[in-house]
Amino acid sequence: MQTLWDHRYAQRTQQMKSSAIRELLKFAERPDVISFAGGMPAPEVFPIKEFKEACIKVLAENGAACLQYGSTDGYMPLKEMIARHSARYGITVTVDNILPTSGSQQALDLLGRIFINPGDRILVESPTYVGALQAWRTYGAEFIPVPFDEDGMITDELEARLRAGPKFIYVLPNFQNPTGVTLSYERRLKLIELADRYGVPIIEDDPYGQLRYEGENLPAIEVLDSQTRLQGTCYSGNVIYLSTFSKTLAPGIRLAWVVAPPEIINKLSLAKQGADLHTSTFNQIVVYEVAKGGFLDEHVKLIRKTYKERLDVMIDTLEEHMPEGIKWTKPKGGLFLWLTTPESLDCQDFFEDAVKEKVAFVPGTSFFAEGGGHNTMRLNFSNATPEKINEGIGRLAKVIKQHLTKSGG
Amino acid sequence: MQTLWDHRYAQRTQQMKSSAIRELLKFAERPDVISFAGGMPAPEVFPIKEFKEACIKVLAENGAACLQYGSTDGYMPLKEMIARHSARYGITVTVDNILPTSGSQQALDLLGRIFINPGDRILVESPTYVGALQAWRTYGAEFIPVPFDEDGMITDELEARLRAGPKFIYVLPNFQNPTGVTLSYERRLKLIELADRYGVPIIEDDPYGQLRYEGENLPAIEVLDSQTRLQGTCYSGNVIYLSTFSKTLAPGIRLAWVVAPPEIINKLSLAKQGADLHTSTFNQIVVYEVAKGGFLDEHVKLIRKTYKERLDVMIDTLEEHMPEGIKWTKPKGGLFLWLTTPESLDCQDFFEDAVKEKVAFVPGTSFFAEGGGHNTMRLNFSNATPEKINEGIGRLAKVIKQHLTKSGG
Repeated sequence: MQTLWDHRYAQRTQQMKSSAIRELLKFAERPDVISFAGGMPAPEVFPIKEFKEACIKVLAENGAACLQYGSTDGYMPLKEMIARHSARYGITVTVDNILPTSGSQQALDLLGRIFINPGDRILVESPTYVGALQAWRTYGAEFIPVPFDEDGMITDELEARLRAGPKFIYVLPNFQNPTGVTLSYERRLKLIELADRYGVPIIEDDPYGQLRYEGENLPAIEVLDSQTRLQGTCYSGNVIYLSTFSKTLAPGIRLAWVVAPPEIINKLSLAKQGADLHTSTFNQIVVYEVAKGGFLDEHVKLIRKTYKERLDVMIDTLEEHMPEGIKWTKPKGGLFLWLTTPESLDCQDFFEDAVKEKVAFVPGTSFFAEGGGHNTMRLNFSNATPEKINEGIGRLAKVIKQHLTKSGG
Repeated sequence: MQTLWDHRYAQRTQQMKSSAIRELLKFAERPDVISFAGGMPAPEVFPIKEFKEACIKVLAENGAACLQYGSTDGYMPLKEMIARHSARYGITVTVDNILPTSGSQQALDLLGRIFINPGDRILVESPTYVGALQAWRTYGAEFIPVPFDEDGMITDELEARLRAGPKFIYVLPNFQNPTGVTLSYERRLKLIELADRYGVPIIEDDPYGQLRYEGENLPAIEVLDSQTRLQGTCYSGNVIYLSTFSKTLAPGIRLAWVVAPPEIINKLSLAKQGADLHTSTFNQIVVYEVAKGGFLDEHVKLIRKTYKERLDVMIDTLEEHMPEGIKWTKPKGGLFLWLTTPESLDCQDFFEDAVKEKVAFVPGTSFFAEGGGHNTMRLNFSNATPEKINEGIGRLAKVIKQHLTKSGG
């Protein structure tokens, strides 16, 4: 249809690409397909009863406020709860350091909006979270990828890249999306030291930090940075820290937060005013009601137990079914692991065959800012029962074996 | 506090200004102040009971889906309901023409994101909705203002301005924010004719269309445009139409929608993927549950009755209390009227005195894209009871009289 809008798109619109994942998910959604493709929490652990009780309570006690316009800065009791909660992990901040956002994706978008000029370079893990690439490409960002191994971003490869003058470093230190690996303690210190030497600040994205299934929690990069500079007495401000209720309560509620210096929070809030005025008052009040009083801690234990079982089953069945030459990461938490086939295979090539066998994954290429990763895939283990995981990995192994034979591998 | 983030802001951050209104609202929020400053619906008409029942029902029947990630394109039954609802007003579209957004502010932001290059000029009513100015300044928009009278934008002033090559025209045809005036039928036709002659498309923002308290509804600009071109059989696509549940159900839920050609909906959805992934699944399902089955129509009747009484009281008390030389618009719907003092007064000057007298308004200047309006103010009548309106207008008249005396007026 021809309209007067034709040829009126802004230049940046050309840089907007659909996340390949979201397109693939449409295939993966068919009910007979066992999908390791999404990044969805298990619906079995959603606190539906608690949400229902919270809705009833807050609408009865505070209905008019729940449904009225709210402040862009966010619901104060929620911010106070986030501040208390953060303090337990060593992030010593006040409500002036916190902005609730409409999911972490909005936090990434608002950070792009206030920091990125066209052509600015961002140092990212390779592979990295595709939503960050998508958000920041809109603002004309370019990316400098840093390779990873089982201990996360390889910090020995960092220094040469820091000389290219990145605007900031973006890192997911815990159970990274998509690889599932965790940045080691030594590398966290090395990252901070190098970032400081080159004067480059850090965005630390931590959606999965609480979902550790074995080993000890490592201190947040933010915490180590503040300790190094200020003996840990207060927040250094060099690391902007992101987290979310999507993985610990429910993603459909769209509620996350940013921790940053107050002047950055003010700029983000200003940007948010223009972007969506404010995050739903109702959702902020309901989440506060659900999470307060210790429920969140108890609930996270249930999630850890459920996901640990699923991760273990996935690792076990991979070992059982996969042919030689296939490798995978061994995450200690989170929602994902990362599988690598021999170079001779292209995982995008056999995605269709996999769906025919009724199993789905995400080909790894879309997680690479600057190309690569044709022989990789991301597997999600949180959103399928142990039985389905067992069955699905069997199907996937079958498809991989067929393609290995075809490729002469 | 000095951090490594210093001097790293993007250029566009300098264009982000806080809406003066939102700053002023902080004063107006003091409980002893009678505020005509906000744009809030009356909490007395929020359907709290219906929201509670809907939350209980959808969480019981469909809890996992409510709390899970959803599609960027929006919840299908909600889109179907919006399409049916639009058809009754002559807007004949399908779900492919509809994108739910996180409030109308997000719709304005996403439109700016896909259409506005730095330096693009947007033709706007003068004064106009400050949230649109705020959203589009972020993308480097400039504005071409068109003056208004009691029949809305003065279309005789339009042609010269269309020659300046605006990217699009932005118009609020019904009970405009901030003036409360409605674009007449003749001017709607004239606007379409001129827009067509110069090949300039239109964004029609219609948050208040259903809130008419007297007279007959006028056809949407979208409807007239489609009738003119295509004998009304289908949607012409030249007019992008925005509306919202904020004024008919509740603003705190943050749910609005865009009507546009499918290719534009696809671009907006892509932009939304990067901006906030999707609008809360829970809120979309709850609003669908509340609104479906005729409740919305019945509820809007209650809102109309409540607000009509408040508007009538405000007009009556203005006539009773205001000194000579003060003028105001006489809206037939919506939430606002517009007051003009003699040129000798500056309404920003006496805002502080008004707050001391415990009454608040919004000085008109922030609604003017290119300056002006020092002797104007916006008065909201939806969020104060008739008794408060009577009292508040008395206080405001007292302050205005004092300042008229001072200025020798």
